[in-house]
Amino acid sequence: MFNAGFDIGGSHIAGGLYDARLNLVRRVDEPFPQGRPQEAPALIARMAGKLCEGIGRGALESVGLAVPGSIDRARERVINAYNLGFHDFPLRALVQERCPEAPVLLGNDADLAALAELHAGALIGAQCAVLLTLGTGLGGGVIINGRLWRGGMGNGCEIGHTILDMSGEVCTCGVRGCAETRCAASALAREGREAAKAHPESLLNGKAGGDPARIDARLVVDCARAGDAAALSVFERYTDALSSAAASLINTLDPEVIALGGGLSGAGEFLFAPVREKTRRKSFYREHARIVPAALGNDAGMLGAALLYGDDRK
Amino acid sequence: MFNAGFDIGGSHIAGGLYDARLNLVRRVDEPFPQGRPQEAPALIARMAGKLCEGIGRGALESVGLAVPGSIDRARERVINAYNLGFHDFPLRALVQERCPEAPVLLGNDADLAALAELHAGALIGAQCAVLLTLGTGLGGGVIINGRLWRGGMGNGCEIGHTILDMSGEVCTCGVRGCAETRCAASALAREGREAAKAHPESLLNGKAGGDPARIDARLVVDCARAGDAAALSVFERYTDALSSAAASLINTLDPEVIALGGGLSGAGEFLFAPVREKTRRKSFYREHARIVPAALGNDAGMLGAALLYGDDRK
Repeated sequence: MFNAGFDIGGSHIAGGLYDARLNLVRRVDEPFPQGRPQEAPALIARMAGKLCEGIGRGALESVGLAVPGSIDRARERVINAYNLGFHDFPLRALVQERCPEAPVLLGNDADLAALAELHAGALIGAQCAVLLTLGTGLGGGVIINGRLWRGGMGNGCEIGHTILDMSGEVCTCGVRGCAETRCAASALAREGREAAKAHPESLLNGKAGGDPARIDARLVVDCARAGDAAALSVFERYTDALSSAAASLINTLDPEVIALGGGLSGAGEFLFAPVREKTRRKSFYREHARIVPAALGNDAGMLGAALLYGDDRK
Repeated sequence: MFNAGFDIGGSHIAGGLYDARLNLVRRVDEPFPQGRPQEAPALIARMAGKLCEGIGRGALESVGLAVPGSIDRARERVINAYNLGFHDFPLRALVQERCPEAPVLLGNDADLAALAELHAGALIGAQCAVLLTLGTGLGGGVIINGRLWRGGMGNGCEIGHTILDMSGEVCTCGVRGCAETRCAASALAREGREAAKAHPESLLNGKAGGDPARIDARLVVDCARAGDAAALSVFERYTDALSSAAASLINTLDPEVIALGGGLSGAGEFLFAPVREKTRRKSFYREHARIVPAALGNDAGMLGAALLYGDDRK
């Protein structure tokens, strides 16, 4: 049997067909129909057809859909996926109508990336684990008892919106102090731009060629690595926050492993060493979660979508 | 069959014998052997003997021990229970030697209070729920999949030491900004004393008879209820923090219900109404956990200890 997974992004839709051993046996990519999101279900069904050419649709066990947005408790509708233009959109049923052969399932892309890491990445074998994705936002997924955690009421899991810094900045969600305001890669970039303004002599300005818009998380890391004082101070504040988020997860869930994903996690030991050391100091327990880089790249959402059916049956 | 539960406190040890319907059929109390903690195991065994008089020790299914402190991952030793003077103390085995008839189990008292609320209190019927105990510290226990959550690595759950206010006060554990620094009843008292000092005209000073040491959480609540501006401002800050802690739990675990226990929860709607309203604004989900008072009083730890064996078997 085969499972199909689709990662639906604002620029393109990636579809993969996986065999029982999680080998990617076929792959299709199409641009997302920007401005015409209502066309997405038919497009996904056509892509599913292409994936199944040769194997026959009868060999398809499930079709999973990963969406960058919030999903209703019944897992039928996308409540909001701003990048896609889906708002209260009954995506699951619309795809199911066009793919009657196999059950269609819907999930959040960050959750599904955690599921993929559990089966084929940095979280393999864990009963309790967390993936934090350091990006424009702070995404993440939680594994409990060897399964994807979908929330006690089915609302999912929004780790980025746990509150970490009550006296801090207001989050895009309107609440002051969400972990996302401090731990997203974009927080590192934002504070880098502020530091560049306050410290004209900083390497941050040199590397950005005087254009603050060019200061992103990678540039801040590069300048910190080069020993620039302003960048180092911003980077220290960032690892303070990320270690506090990790320690909070440890002191609540006590996971075996916390994986950090997103482009920023590519900073390697320069990031992981201080995060591990600070987390150790903030953790209530002597033996606690390992903190490791996520192992899967861009295909994590697609693989996770293909794994959703199996996880549901557990 | 009967289960015995012991709540081991710094001033006294309470033991209860429960039948299968959780009726308390017999109860014993003894002062805790202060300064001679090594005598506690023999005392507990004698108390268990008294509880079983008449029923015969063969009818005893288990003996549970609730301890106000941290427990090792094997649930054999009390790592630290400062009020009792237990430090790396192999309490389970020492009681088991003296009570060979039934398995002896060890748990943290806040965790066990949550288990008791699950079976006989405010959390009945929940698959996922949280008890927060507002006291000198911020205790708590978590229910996941209808069972007591003991942490993914067996370390337990220290909700009071999730980080809520990174820029705030340093906690007794040494980490800056733990939820306990803002949400414990003692935080309300501490901030009340500071407000009294800053506002000599405040009712806080009048009610305390000029003795700041008399300002406790109840007095702050009383003054806030009476409309005193300084006390109201402290109380507002407290409900800000408690609602942030509740929203963080909702955004991670999405429990069906959060119960608030401890003496302060007796403040009723004056506390619950603003906490509910502020939590609603900070929650990521439209439909989320109810916030209710804990239903059990002082016997929660004892009952929870008696329930530990059954929960383990689930």
